[in-house]
Amino acid sequence: MKRSLGRKTLILPSPAWVVGTYDAQGEPNGMTAAWGGICCSKPPSVCVSIREATYTYQAIVDRQAFTVNVPAADQVKQADYLGIASGRDVDKFAVAGLSAVRAEHVDAPLVDEFPLNLECALIHTVKIGLHTLFVGEIRDVKAEESILNEKGRPSIEKLSPPIFSVGEAAYYAVGAPLGPAFTIGKDLGDIE
Amino acid sequence: MKRSLGRKTLILPSPAWVVGTYDAQGEPNGMTAAWGGICCSKPPSVCVSIREATYTYQAIVDRQAFTVNVPAADQVKQADYLGIASGRDVDKFAVAGLSAVRAEHVDAPLVDEFPLNLECALIHTVKIGLHTLFVGEIRDVKAEESILNEKGRPSIEKLSPPIFSVGEAAYYAVGAPLGPAFTIGKDLGDIE
Repeated sequence: MKRSLGRKTLILPSPAWVVGTYDAQGEPNGMTAAWGGICCSKPPSVCVSIREATYTYQAIVDRQAFTVNVPAADQVKQADYLGIASGRDVDKFAVAGLSAVRAEHVDAPLVDEFPLNLECALIHTVKIGLHTLFVGEIRDVKAEESILNEKGRPSIEKLSPPIFSVGEAAYYAVGAPLGPAFTIGKDLGDIE
Repeated sequence: MKRSLGRKTLILPSPAWVVGTYDAQGEPNGMTAAWGGICCSKPPSVCVSIREATYTYQAIVDRQAFTVNVPAADQVKQADYLGIASGRDVDKFAVAGLSAVRAEHVDAPLVDEFPLNLECALIHTVKIGLHTLFVGEIRDVKAEESILNEKGRPSIEKLSPPIFSVGEAAYYAVGAPLGPAFTIGKDLGDIE
């Protein structure tokens, strides 16, 4: 039996990423965002949605750039902190014990301690309502060697990024493998 | 030690959602999409990115509507199938043993067997490159009673949606809770 829950953002799962920017004084700031996802393969692009009231919003508009930084499961406390404090009030990197490193290809800082970082140049801005959607073209991905699999790609098993659940308002670890993509479904029908 | 991986869509995690549409003949179709996420709280909105070459693309443009359907972990085989076959060639719902039910508020079908369904009206279209980003305003969320928590919200523990890893090209289950959001980070600093 299904129940109607109304007009709400109740979908699962969401990521817990940290958006890195430089403010007008050139100070690094990081803000946690669960509203985002990959949005194009060519050019490789990722989107994040940010409220206009945030410190990060103006920084993205001014610098036309941001980074997306993926924490490991044991960095979830720092990621959560970056989502509740404001860069207007405090140096969030310092309080969280994190280091900002200038990105190589865009005007934004990487969270050095987080194992996976994307350098993004702003290519589209879509005002939706409370949130504005920023599309960033991925100019480079940087990853700790320790999270790479045998194909040289970031491994979800090794990185273990926190998964955000809007339903529980909580973070979760990644669990057991369920099967290979573009493969397990072939059992159901003939695919050319 | 970090390594540069180049301009790639290598971020984690991604969802594995099924986008539901009606084609020009009014036949239901479902296509798996990992490129998407929530993109606004007010109006509540979700985005999915779709290649122009897909059958789903034209259906969204024609009907100005789509649904986003979230499978449970034990439906991952069906979800994977919907991502590799094309609605041009086969009735994917029939092959996968799934039922299409007309959405209440938009001109698109829900995947009845999947426990969580969002009815979306198209409000923005952004051509990025290979993919086009569609922003859908969420007109209703429908959920199986069995996946709701004590607050009446979809529970990631009860639903157990597959998590897609682009690094492994595989699906994963949701693991153990890591802590409450907007809470565990408060240990790190004074928050007003």
